[in-house]
Amino acid sequence: MSSVVKAPILNNGEAIERLRQVVNPRAKNFFAMYSSLMEGIIKDPALMVVPLDDHMVHRGHGVFDTAALIHGRLYQLDEHLERFLGSAKMARIPLPLDPVDLRNIVLATSAASGQREASVRYWLSAGPGGFSLDPAECIRSAFYVVVFKQENYPDSYYREGIKVITSGVPIKPPFFARVKSTNYLPNVLVVVEAKEMGAQNGIFIDQRGMVGEGSNMNVAFVTRDRILRHPPFDAILSGITVRRVATLARRLMESGDLKDIVCADIPLEEGHAAAEMFLIGSTTRVMPVVQWDGRPLGDGRPGPIAKKLLELWHADAENPAHSVAVPYDGAAD
Amino acid sequence: MSSVVKAPILNNGEAIERLRQVVNPRAKNFFAMYSSLMEGIIKDPALMVVPLDDHMVHRGHGVFDTAALIHGRLYQLDEHLERFLGSAKMARIPLPLDPVDLRNIVLATSAASGQREASVRYWLSAGPGGFSLDPAECIRSAFYVVVFKQENYPDSYYREGIKVITSGVPIKPPFFARVKSTNYLPNVLVVVEAKEMGAQNGIFIDQRGMVGEGSNMNVAFVTRDRILRHPPFDAILSGITVRRVATLARRLMESGDLKDIVCADIPLEEGHAAAEMFLIGSTTRVMPVVQWDGRPLGDGRPGPIAKKLLELWHADAENPAHSVAVPYDGAAD
Repeated sequence: MSSVVKAPILNNGEAIERLRQVVNPRAKNFFAMYSSLMEGIIKDPALMVVPLDDHMVHRGHGVFDTAALIHGRLYQLDEHLERFLGSAKMARIPLPLDPVDLRNIVLATSAASGQREASVRYWLSAGPGGFSLDPAECIRSAFYVVVFKQENYPDSYYREGIKVITSGVPIKPPFFARVKSTNYLPNVLVVVEAKEMGAQNGIFIDQRGMVGEGSNMNVAFVTRDRILRHPPFDAILSGITVRRVATLARRLMESGDLKDIVCADIPLEEGHAAAEMFLIGSTTRVMPVVQWDGRPLGDGRPGPIAKKLLELWHADAENPAHSVAVPYDGAAD
Repeated sequence: MSSVVKAPILNNGEAIERLRQVVNPRAKNFFAMYSSLMEGIIKDPALMVVPLDDHMVHRGHGVFDTAALIHGRLYQLDEHLERFLGSAKMARIPLPLDPVDLRNIVLATSAASGQREASVRYWLSAGPGGFSLDPAECIRSAFYVVVFKQENYPDSYYREGIKVITSGVPIKPPFFARVKSTNYLPNVLVVVEAKEMGAQNGIFIDQRGMVGEGSNMNVAFVTRDRILRHPPFDAILSGITVRRVATLARRLMESGDLKDIVCADIPLEEGHAAAEMFLIGSTTRVMPVVQWDGRPLGDGRPGPIAKKLLELWHADAENPAHSVAVPYDGAAD
């Protein structure tokens, strides 16, 4: 076994010490993790771990959602939690705690992080219990929360716009596209493929040739006759940000910038011919696309609607009516 | 925050203690785990953990395979490792170690377990590094191995046969069905649905109405004119056991039990009309199906070919020519 240079049997102290020594430059950006298995909050990234036998780890039997922590408040937390509970139901994962407790734990973990600007992501897992497929072996479902520093996209992406490609990666069947599960290998491969082709993201096309979604965000268009269009949510994830942006866009109808807002299927060629295109999600917000499959999108520069929608988004994210205060002092909202 | 009854901030000692206190009755069956992050083997199930930020955990960016440890030897280890490396390539995960070292670590972990009958499963993950989609943030890919007690199916499944249903769960697109990734939510849901309907497993039907595969095993049939048929591997996982069984089945052609062995598409109605049906995989081996969608399969009892193929499989698994010895004494094969 001389070629096995590094597989000694470790005692527990050594194992923990080695976990601590994993050089992970981003770990300093992991501020707090809650684990229902530990029934507590961990602040040392080395111990932000999950059991290998957790079915989320080895079977992808887990769902998640993310809320943005903006100026000490969780933006659209309840909308994200509602989708999260819907995903859990579709993935047949029972709740380990009452939804009110899940919400309070998200808030408590955010508070424990001490951060005021971050991402807060939470998972519901079928839980640990063994290595089979069947969740009946799981001891109970598990809830995990992590607060981490959101690495924002470069400002240039907003100023100059980004390039996308039509992805060759097959889109998920509609049922699975609508569950926000950890089965994100297709989404990962869209990003890998796009980067290899010199683009920043890729667009899934559905089984009918209609525009689907980006790697992990929605898409929307402004047609040349000033109609905001985005695909319906029957074969893609129901985007909380795109739905909010579509609501905010009504003000651009009042101002005359837009003539209409339509949620309907968009064939690929119609998308290619748009005046403006955006990627819309909780981390991209409203990001202008200026090139698609090597061809200019619209006039090849970020358009006026992109800028106005992004401004509306920023104002909305600062509006306390749409967010929940984090109880840093221990008092709930 | 009075309803958050249990989210204290834990120090490291408390966190580890709580990991140890997770009551997991099956943990006694987890004998050894190797982690390339720890560069060693852990024997305490409480420390058989992976970082939450590992992309396999939160994005399903991981692939796996399993080899059966039978009488102290790993059956068809090299065939399983070959498929594993193919899955890694399709999922765009670079190897953290040379394939020879991966193989030696599988053997070393098996040896460290001290077990002679077990399952040995190994994963290649994009690795830890953050919570985005992009594997470019991962510090390096990770390799994990676990040796656990295989909970065999009840003997009655072989003696009396099992019931299956046609699953309503959508099958993965062909590309993803061919990668053995951790994106197994569809496979999980097939099992959950089947159990709810009083069956033991479900059968995926592909986009064209052809018989696909079981939850995590292949299917094969014997037609009424004694032809062994199984679907091709263009839209399902290429099964190592079914391919081996199809090879072993040639002896049943020599003996006159079978007239032919054909790998070809099988429409659902043709499957329903078969004389015998089996689920074939490394844990099911050759398991007879006696009822499908509430109707008897064949004459509703396990047939003669099922029994003969299972005997051939057992003899093959005991043949040292098809397995690799585990170096319990520290000496490689």
